[in-house]
Amino acid sequence: MRRKPYIIAVAGGSGSGKTFLAERLVAALHDRRPLLLSQDYYYRDRSDLTFEQRQGINYDDPKAIEFTLLIRHLQALSDGHSVEHPLYDFTTHNRRPETVKVSPSDWIILDGILLLAVSELLPLLDLKIFVDTAMDLCFIRRLQRDTTSRGRSVQSVIDQYLATVRPMYLRHVFPSRVHADLVVSGEEESALTIDKILLKLPT
Amino acid sequence: MRRKPYIIAVAGGSGSGKTFLAERLVAALHDRRPLLLSQDYYYRDRSDLTFEQRQGINYDDPKAIEFTLLIRHLQALSDGHSVEHPLYDFTTHNRRPETVKVSPSDWIILDGILLLAVSELLPLLDLKIFVDTAMDLCFIRRLQRDTTSRGRSVQSVIDQYLATVRPMYLRHVFPSRVHADLVVSGEEESALTIDKILLKLPT
Repeated sequence: MRRKPYIIAVAGGSGSGKTFLAERLVAALHDRRPLLLSQDYYYRDRSDLTFEQRQGINYDDPKAIEFTLLIRHLQALSDGHSVEHPLYDFTTHNRRPETVKVSPSDWIILDGILLLAVSELLPLLDLKIFVDTAMDLCFIRRLQRDTTSRGRSVQSVIDQYLATVRPMYLRHVFPSRVHADLVVSGEEESALTIDKILLKLPT
Repeated sequence: MRRKPYIIAVAGGSGSGKTFLAERLVAALHDRRPLLLSQDYYYRDRSDLTFEQRQGINYDDPKAIEFTLLIRHLQALSDGHSVEHPLYDFTTHNRRPETVKVSPSDWIILDGILLLAVSELLPLLDLKIFVDTAMDLCFIRRLQRDTTSRGRSVQSVIDQYLATVRPMYLRHVFPSRVHADLVVSGEEESALTIDKILLKLPT
């Protein structure tokens, strides 16, 4: 009989260091061939809107994510089926035309700011991690990432942060911290963090 | 007999909105002809150092400020004497050659991040205000000010923030909040804030 996959969620603010931690976790669990799924893949398809309209969307609101599809995929993977997850393009603000086919794995790592803020998702998660980082440090990392690799201007990063990222963090992300099994600091890189997580996992 | 001046200190982090509040206070007290003195005027004269050396100074450490001179000036003003306060140039990182002569006033408003962190200064202050603002908002304001009016690059603002501004805020500025008679929020402009302060003043 197949084992149900063990699902680890890594949540926290934008720029908290959660993606970095999720990737280190994938590396640490390399022998178990974990599957990494990002919440970002599941931004809704908004081809019905113009580029300008898509620029106006609040991407930090839970409604911007197709969580029903993520949940369906997690259930299919649990049942031993492959799934094709979408991809998202941060430059065009839209879903990409291609999908990525992934096979079931006994270990699934999810990475996303709102994973602990969606009540339908919580019962599926075996280990809920929240990466806690001061908001000024989160903003600085976001500023560096978005101006470097997403082609945004400093002012547009500031405007988006104040208009949606910050209020949604305070409304949805930070309060979801109470659901975490483990809160880790994302302010400094520490080998202890990974060790602490590995200790929580079944063998 | 002359009245000893009433001295109001407005402290808080860099970018907290303290200068804005101090200026609004000056406007509100306009009829009483208040004197505004900024802690920034009193950055030490470092003509003995090269520009490169001056760039390396920790400007957020209390040692960077000539508080003994500020205290001497406050005492002279209290005794009814004029003083000549220095000026500071943020572009050359040095004291400017000229000084500004100011006459005594019954009302003195001080503006500076470390005013409540210097134990010798505290007994001279009649009303101690701390402007409290989340660190991410402080950083964003600082980023906008320093890139716009002080000719700094985004990366140099980030580097200075992480190297000195943030650690000094956590070590010196935030802990000095306990000395405040009044803590006000600098996150949103509110007429109530000024009213609250005016209520504390002698008539």
